[in-house]
Amino acid sequence: MGIAYMMKKHRRHNKAVHKSSLKEFLHQPGTPPGTIIIDENAEQPNIVLIDYNRANLVNKKLQQPEDCFQYLDTESVSWVDVQGLGNRDIIQRLGQVFDLHPLVLEDVVNMAERPKVEDYEDQLVIIARMVVPNINNHSFHSEQVSFVLGKYYLLTIQEEPEYDCFQSVRNRIEKGKGIIRRQSADYLAYSLLDAIIDGFFPVLELYGERLEELEEEVIFNPNQHTLQQIYQIRRELLQLRRAIWPQRDAINTLIRDGSELISEEVRIYLRDCYDHTVQVMDMVETYRELASGLMDVYLSAVGNKMNEIMKLLTVVSAIFIPLTFIAGIYGMNFNTEKSPFNMPELNWYWGYPFCLGLMALIAVVLLFIFWRRGWLSNSFHIK
Amino acid sequence: MGIAYMMKKHRRHNKAVHKSSLKEFLHQPGTPPGTIIIDENAEQPNIVLIDYNRANLVNKKLQQPEDCFQYLDTESVSWVDVQGLGNRDIIQRLGQVFDLHPLVLEDVVNMAERPKVEDYEDQLVIIARMVVPNINNHSFHSEQVSFVLGKYYLLTIQEEPEYDCFQSVRNRIEKGKGIIRRQSADYLAYSLLDAIIDGFFPVLELYGERLEELEEEVIFNPNQHTLQQIYQIRRELLQLRRAIWPQRDAINTLIRDGSELISEEVRIYLRDCYDHTVQVMDMVETYRELASGLMDVYLSAVGNKMNEIMKLLTVVSAIFIPLTFIAGIYGMNFNTEKSPFNMPELNWYWGYPFCLGLMALIAVVLLFIFWRRGWLSNSFHIK
Amino acid sequence: MGIAYMMKKHRRHNKAVHKSSLKEFLHQPGTPPGTIIIDENAEQPNIVLIDYNRANLVNKKLQQPEDCFQYLDTESVSWVDVQGLGNRDIIQRLGQVFDLHPLVLEDVVNMAERPKVEDYEDQLVIIARMVVPNINNHSFHSEQVSFVLGKYYLLTIQEEPEYDCFQSVRNRIEKGKGIIRRQSADYLAYSLLDAIIDGFFPVLELYGERLEELEEEVIFNPNQHTLQQIYQIRRELLQLRRAIWPQRDAINTLIRDGSELISEEVRIYLRDCYDHTVQVMDMVETYRELASGLMDVYLSAVGNKMNEIMKLLTVVSAIFIPLTFIAGIYGMNFNTEKSPFNMPELNWYWGYPFCLGLMALIAVVLLFIFWRRGWLSNSFHIK
Amino acid sequence: MGIAYMMKKHRRHNKAVHKSSLKEFLHQPGTPPGTIIIDENAEQPNIVLIDYNRANLVNKKLQQPEDCFQYLDTESVSWVDVQGLGNRDIIQRLGQVFDLHPLVLEDVVNMAERPKVEDYEDQLVIIARMVVPNINNHSFHSEQVSFVLGKYYLLTIQEEPEYDCFQSVRNRIEKGKGIIRRQSADYLAYSLLDAIIDGFFPVLELYGERLEELEEEVIFNPNQHTLQQIYQIRRELLQLRRAIWPQRDAINTLIRDGSELISEEVRIYLRDCYDHTVQVMDMVETYRELASGLMDVYLSAVGNKMNEIMKLLTVVSAIFIPLTFIAGIYGMNFNTEKSPFNMPELNWYWGYPFCLGLMALIAVVLLFIFWRRGWLSNSFHIK
Amino acid sequence: MGIAYMMKKHRRHNKAVHKSSLKEFLHQPGTPPGTIIIDENAEQPNIVLIDYNRANLVNKKLQQPEDCFQYLDTESVSWVDVQGLGNRDIIQRLGQVFDLHPLVLEDVVNMAERPKVEDYEDQLVIIARMVVPNINNHSFHSEQVSFVLGKYYLLTIQEEPEYDCFQSVRNRIEKGKGIIRRQSADYLAYSLLDAIIDGFFPVLELYGERLEELEEEVIFNPNQHTLQQIYQIRRELLQLRRAIWPQRDAINTLIRDGSELISEEVRIYLRDCYDHTVQVMDMVETYRELASGLMDVYLSAVGNKMNEIMKLLTVVSAIFIPLTFIAGIYGMNFNTEKSPFNMPELNWYWGYPFCLGLMALIAVVLLFIFWRRGWLSNSFHIK
Ligand SMILES: [Mg+2]
Ligand SMILES: [Mg+2]
Ligand SMILES: [Mg+2]
Ligand SMILES: [Mg+2]
Ligand SMILES: [Mg+2]
Ligand SMILES: [Mg+2]
Ligand SMILES: [Mg+2]
Ligand SMILES: [Mg+2]
Ligand SMILES: [Mg+2]
Ligand SMILES: [Mg+2]
Ligand SMILES: [Mg+2]
Ligand SMILES: [Mg+2]
Ligand SMILES: [Mg+2]
Ligand SMILES: [Mg+2]
Ligand SMILES: [Mg+2]
Ligand SMILES: [Mg+2]
Ligand SMILES: [Mg+2]
Ligand SMILES: [Mg+2]
Ligand SMILES: [Mg+2]
Ligand SMILES: [Mg+2]
Ligand SMILES: [Mg+2]
Ligand SMILES: [Mg+2]
Ligand SMILES: [Mg+2]
Ligand SMILES: [Mg+2]
Ligand SMILES: [Mg+2]
Ligand SMILES: [Mg+2]
Ligand SMILES: [Mg+2]
Ligand SMILES: [Mg+2]
Ligand SMILES: [Mg+2]
Ligand SMILES: [Mg+2]
Ligand SMILES: [Mg+2]
Repeated sequence: MGIAYMMKKHRRHNKAVHKSSLKEFLHQPGTPPGTIIIDENAEQPNIVLIDYNRANLVNKKLQQPEDCFQYLDTESVSWVDVQGLGNRDIIQRLGQVFDLHPLVLEDVVNMAERPKVEDYEDQLVIIARMVVPNINNHSFHSEQVSFVLGKYYLLTIQEEPEYDCFQSVRNRIEKGKGIIRRQSADYLAYSLLDAIIDGFFPVLELYGERLEELEEEVIFNPNQHTLQQIYQIRRELLQLRRAIWPQRDAINTLIRDGSELISEEVRIYLRDCYDHTVQVMDMVETYRELASGLMDVYLSAVGNKMNEIMKLLTVVSAIFIPLTFIAGIYGMNFNTEKSPFNMPELNWYWGYPFCLGLMALIAVVLLFIFWRRGWLSNSFHIK
Repeated sequence: MGIAYMMKKHRRHNKAVHKSSLKEFLHQPGTPPGTIIIDENAEQPNIVLIDYNRANLVNKKLQQPEDCFQYLDTESVSWVDVQGLGNRDIIQRLGQVFDLHPLVLEDVVNMAERPKVEDYEDQLVIIARMVVPNINNHSFHSEQVSFVLGKYYLLTIQEEPEYDCFQSVRNRIEKGKGIIRRQSADYLAYSLLDAIIDGFFPVLELYGERLEELEEEVIFNPNQHTLQQIYQIRRELLQLRRAIWPQRDAINTLIRDGSELISEEVRIYLRDCYDHTVQVMDMVETYRELASGLMDVYLSAVGNKMNEIMKLLTVVSAIFIPLTFIAGIYGMNFNTEKSPFNMPELNWYWGYPFCLGLMALIAVVLLFIFWRRGWLSNSFHIK
Repeated sequence: MGIAYMMKKHRRHNKAVHKSSLKEFLHQPGTPPGTIIIDENAEQPNIVLIDYNRANLVNKKLQQPEDCFQYLDTESVSWVDVQGLGNRDIIQRLGQVFDLHPLVLEDVVNMAERPKVEDYEDQLVIIARMVVPNINNHSFHSEQVSFVLGKYYLLTIQEEPEYDCFQSVRNRIEKGKGIIRRQSADYLAYSLLDAIIDGFFPVLELYGERLEELEEEVIFNPNQHTLQQIYQIRRELLQLRRAIWPQRDAINTLIRDGSELISEEVRIYLRDCYDHTVQVMDMVETYRELASGLMDVYLSAVGNKMNEIMKLLTVVSAIFIPLTFIAGIYGMNFNTEKSPFNMPELNWYWGYPFCLGLMALIAVVLLFIFWRRGWLSNSFHIK
Repeated sequence: MGIAYMMKKHRRHNKAVHKSSLKEFLHQPGTPPGTIIIDENAEQPNIVLIDYNRANLVNKKLQQPEDCFQYLDTESVSWVDVQGLGNRDIIQRLGQVFDLHPLVLEDVVNMAERPKVEDYEDQLVIIARMVVPNINNHSFHSEQVSFVLGKYYLLTIQEEPEYDCFQSVRNRIEKGKGIIRRQSADYLAYSLLDAIIDGFFPVLELYGERLEELEEEVIFNPNQHTLQQIYQIRRELLQLRRAIWPQRDAINTLIRDGSELISEEVRIYLRDCYDHTVQVMDMVETYRELASGLMDVYLSAVGNKMNEIMKLLTVVSAIFIPLTFIAGIYGMNFNTEKSPFNMPELNWYWGYPFCLGLMALIAVVLLFIFWRRGWLSNSFHIK
Repeated sequence: MGIAYMMKKHRRHNKAVHKSSLKEFLHQPGTPPGTIIIDENAEQPNIVLIDYNRANLVNKKLQQPEDCFQYLDTESVSWVDVQGLGNRDIIQRLGQVFDLHPLVLEDVVNMAERPKVEDYEDQLVIIARMVVPNINNHSFHSEQVSFVLGKYYLLTIQEEPEYDCFQSVRNRIEKGKGIIRRQSADYLAYSLLDAIIDGFFPVLELYGERLEELEEEVIFNPNQHTLQQIYQIRRELLQLRRAIWPQRDAINTLIRDGSELISEEVRIYLRDCYDHTVQVMDMVETYRELASGLMDVYLSAVGNKMNEIMKLLTVVSAIFIPLTFIAGIYGMNFNTEKSPFNMPELNWYWGYPFCLGLMALIAVVLLFIFWRRGWLSNSFHIK
């Protein structure tokens, strides 16, 4: 029952993951470039502004995109964080406020873009993907975040308001921790990217734990649940891999071919972020190899288990079939009176004990042979 | 029966797909370069002209290739769409009208070219491949489309008139939606390429659904149909892969080494198209990995199922073989009168109940052992 | 019997293929560079001259290499086609007539060279490999062809006279079809290379057909013959792959780094030839993936078949073993007279019908259970 | 019991290895860059100074980081070896003494960095990973070592004081062996890197031995322990691979793009070190392929073993089932008095011997058939 | 017994191969660079001098390294061939005579270097690996050869005197065959490299033969010996691969970045040698793919064999179990006198013949069914 329940839970989770990957198809064939398609289930956008410099800090929720205008040209860093994509009108007005190319707006709204960097002279557009561990099902929530970096502002647009991994950056800004308040918008962009990459580690930790649990299970008790788990992990690691690989290329692009919008100092910080991206990739690939190795182990362990089952059947058969044959012999109805050769044992005084003794002897000899081969002990561990 | 029917349907579909891949061999060895070989089953060509600029629009079916001449040199964009390759004469006259190199004409007619771009100074030749989902068999129709892009015209040649994914572009031209009416022929070429790439998404959606269905089936009820499906999907994804990989290279070539025929603005749009091509490739590779993982799961699940079958056989044998042996013992014909040791149980008052009791005891003990190992419950789920 | 015969045929074919691959070892270790080693089974060379220009045509068999001299310096294209390598003297005199580097002569004679292009200032040496379908055993004949291209001549040397794929080119020269008579020796070299590449398509067609046949067999009736076939196809595709990959590099070298001996116009034609080479490679790789997928399917199908066999055994055992046990019970010899508990059924009026009824009931219940699980119907399809 | 004990040991070891790989997650998401996170289990740092030139040698343990100051600017080579990372205060003061960039300090403390080289103008930072064989569990201890190379000093920071592979270098310095006392700090850095790379060889030797033992076991006695071992080896080789690959890139960077801090002469020595790194990689890859091949062999061997088990069952069944059937025939109760056809054998004089003879004949014939097929001998070797 | 003997031989051979691969660990961690470690089992060095020019030839065994001095500066080519590494003193004096860098000397003595080329201004150091077929165990002897090429001399150092593949070169020098006597030391180095590469072909031929033998065995009689052989071949091909890959890079380096010590003419010859190296690599990769394919076939064939075994068991069981049940029915002791329904057959006149007939009918029907499915014939071929 416990297993059946877990199966169901998993299947449900399975569906959930896939649904999110089916969202990839929202990109509607046949629309003109720059078309903004709003997912009907998407949430209404919150627009949160954090405007800061070394001395001052404004942190408030804006009612409409046009409220940004007064902050964009001041030298303080203006971080406009849009959370939710469910309102075409607001998205389009955002596009006008920040003067975005229609193709950028389309990318921002299409929640299945590959991470990338694009350079539009006075703006740098970064598409990233953040993951947040989902401890309930030992999986993760995945969400696209778009960055538009200008000289004095950073616009970030995420799919929905509930999950993100930017809280630590918000805290640092508010409490003036670290050097963030003394730096410009490019450092803010780096800090958020760094938070996104750092967010992959707790997710990977979950997979490390799941793999560790499966390692025991796969050798000592391989069953359908194990099999399903291994497949599920391989599948989710494939998703993680698709999220992290292009992100590495994007960060590398920022470091090497970056526009004037990124200072030399921030490039050094991005190098650190790049290191972590490579480390995440390394771990994803290692886990993928481990999961693939577990599948090989599973197949072998199933074969092993079969061997043990068959040994048990063979032991039972090899012992009782000959004995039953002997019993069959003395169950024949040859007429002992017609001939002294016709089963005289039946009339012997010690006939029955002799017969039982013979059977016992055969059984003992066979048991000894099987014991020597180790078939008896092994078979007791099969589940 | 239902299964047999589905099998048949699949096999038929299977054939159909392969036939299309056998068309690849139409390229006849031993012909001089530039030879035009007409597939005898190919359909008669329709020639559809759409000539437009910001103000005017002509949309008509032409009777013969030479009717194009009057449109080609005017500054309006002239899109000549040839649908069908079944007439050598018309194809050759098209070649003269558009002044095509004989090798280009051969490529256009050979329906198995690899997508590519070739630069002939005042013409850019693009060979592409479009796919259209075939919902009947959850597969796809695949067709070659050749583009010849000149300064004021675009010639497209597709295999047959029934399927294409250009309708949305035709609508946009007719209704003046988007910026297409204000742009030149290179933007039209981009729009059609974009429609082709976008057309891969619905096809991939079908495969996503098929894989999802198989994931359940492969673990809980693996059978020949599952196996056949997995192989079929791997095979069709291989075809999709062959269609999309060279297309990416071709679009990349257009963006980077493109001739003067492609403006800077259109290059930005092509970059968007390139993104989608990479996304399609990503999804094809992911699906291929999933399908390959499903094959591993299948093999393991078949082994699991075998274990369950063997457990059932072993339980039945291990319980009844010893019992039958006991029945055999008391079926022996030792003469009880010749000796008090000869099966005295047969004459006991409680002999038979004792014997049945012994059997019941053995059966219960064995059942308990098997129940403890979980062999009893598991075995009930095998199909 | 039919199968045994096919097996034999295959094994013989198998040998044949391998023998050809053992010829690779003819390269004798320890010989000085430029040593010419004649395979004792090689055929005596024919020397066929075709000398042509727009107006004139000579086509004759030469008696000795020195007969070439009179044609080599004239502006007409002189194609000297040497068919067979079995005469050291003639080969060496050829080397003198055409002024070949000793290493070139060694390569020409060694029938296992990798395809390549080498530039010797006034000569271009091309080593190619041509394949000809062998319809008898659904495999192919493979042969090395060496090209030495000079300004006014082309020397081709092939292993033996029986097979080649140049007939169509000879016909075009003789009948003046196409532009070949108006072009120089580089166009002739292109035409022959094109014929060689085109010659791979019919061979691939054979493998496409064999794979298609195996796809049915592998799921519905997997057996040793299938297994052998799959292995054989993988092996032969490996040979095709080794033949086509370096050929692509060679043609690419001709297009990009080519000497003055190749005109700009012919380079365009070579690009077409390169396209076809890539297409052949594509198909070989696709077929290799299909064959490798078929091996996976085979393994799974064998497991499936085993499941069906075991189901049959389990059904038979599970039904008859309990019934036999019951029969065993009533075959015991408890003395019914000693006690009313000793098998009173034996003396009942309806005892035997009751017993048979019990057995029938058990059988029906078990059959029902197995029918519900679908074990009965499936098992009927195993071969 | 012996096996159970080994299993336990292995599982414990297994955990141990994994724990170390979970340390990778110590990198805390959400911290500002340059944050120093101290592992609470890390050991208190020892600071060991070895300051030497051709003539003089100082070797002492320093009480606090600031004690370094007096040595750093002198022309003698000052090697400051910090062993242990368990004290934030000391680490931060070290950073001030050596003027380290905050990101460098973070890398040094984070014990899961990928090996790399970073050039900070007057300092070269090298992150390396050293391994020390752990003979108890045939595995290895792995530890990060960071190098900061200045003109006259080398700072090395390792995770803990117990294990390292630098003793031979310390000896060479103390005893003045080799040229080390005549060289500058870059040669010292090379010597330590060389010791790190050389330290991989004894670890690989352990794996070579484990693989050799498994090769016998996997064919002749494949069991769960073998399976677990193969998986474990694959897993640990994966860790080794992750340690050595980036190290190669790092050393290559030192050789090619190295700063002025590395002399031409030392570059030649680094080339030697690079050779060894490549050799380690080669061996790791070879061992990985062998381990992966062993997994294939395991699967096949399990199948083989199953075949032997089934042969035994089939031999026993095929011999005794027919015999038991015959015994069953003559155990039937047909009334011999009602008809001369009703089992007249029962009343024959030679009936019983005839019956036993028939059984013996059948048994002998079947045994002969199985013997001819080699089923009898093979089956005796299964364990 | 024959098999047991072969197994033993193989295992011994197996060990031997591995021992040689364990020599790789001789590289002692912790020694200063340039340390010369003598393998205690290495043989005492022979020093053989061959000094030649167009006119003269000296061929003698030198007593000590210093005897070389008189030849090294003369314009004749001086080939000093050192065979054996078992004497530290001689090796070090050689180093002084030829003025070798300590790292070169270390490489020469360490018998597990990766093939490579290093340029030391007036010397070119080449580390190569030669293989010699070992026909006894169908494997190969592998040995490192180091070349030090100067303007007028070539020093070669090989591990031991028994095996090498230079005899043909020695013969050519002595007999003045080919152009070798007219060329300088670089041509001699080429000739020896060419002999080394050519030496791989006979080794590969052995593997070709072993694979061919296994192809039959693996399908028709897969057993543990086959499995062991396939693994062994994969393992040895892995060693060959490690020997040939870096050799290709080394020869390529000689051709492209070579020092002044290699003339243009010899570069053309090295190109020929490079071709052969690529061909060897090609064949090694092909054989590796074939061996890996054979492993797949093996696994499938083992499954096939199991199917045949199970078919036999199922046929025997399915036929005799029902018959035995019928016999059991008529062995029951229902009292025929108590009721006309109690097994009246027992008292029928034709009861027994009827019963036997029923059994025969069932057997025939079942045999027919199994025959129709082909189970009867197939089963006769299992070994
Ligand atoms: Mg679009
Ligand atoms: Mg998405
Ligand atoms: Mg998203
Ligand atoms: Mg970070
Ligand atoms: Mg860092
Ligand atoms: Mg692995
Ligand atoms: Mg052609
Ligand atoms: Mg087509
Ligand atoms: Mg698009
Ligand atoms: Mg886009
Ligand atoms: Mg996968
Ligand atoms: Mg040679
Ligand atoms: Mg050949
Ligand atoms: Mg040839
Ligand atoms: Mg062609
Ligand atoms: Mg073409
Ligand atoms: Mg595939
Ligand atoms: Mg595969
Ligand atoms: Mg951080
Ligand atoms: Mg770590
Ligand atoms: Mg560490
Ligand atoms: Mg070293
Ligand atoms: Mg070295
Ligand atoms: Mg391998
Ligand atoms: Mg594998
Ligand atoms: Mg060393
Ligand atoms: Mg070695
Ligand atoms: Mg050696
Ligand atoms: Mg050679
Ligand atoms: Mg050659
Ligand atoms: Mg293969």
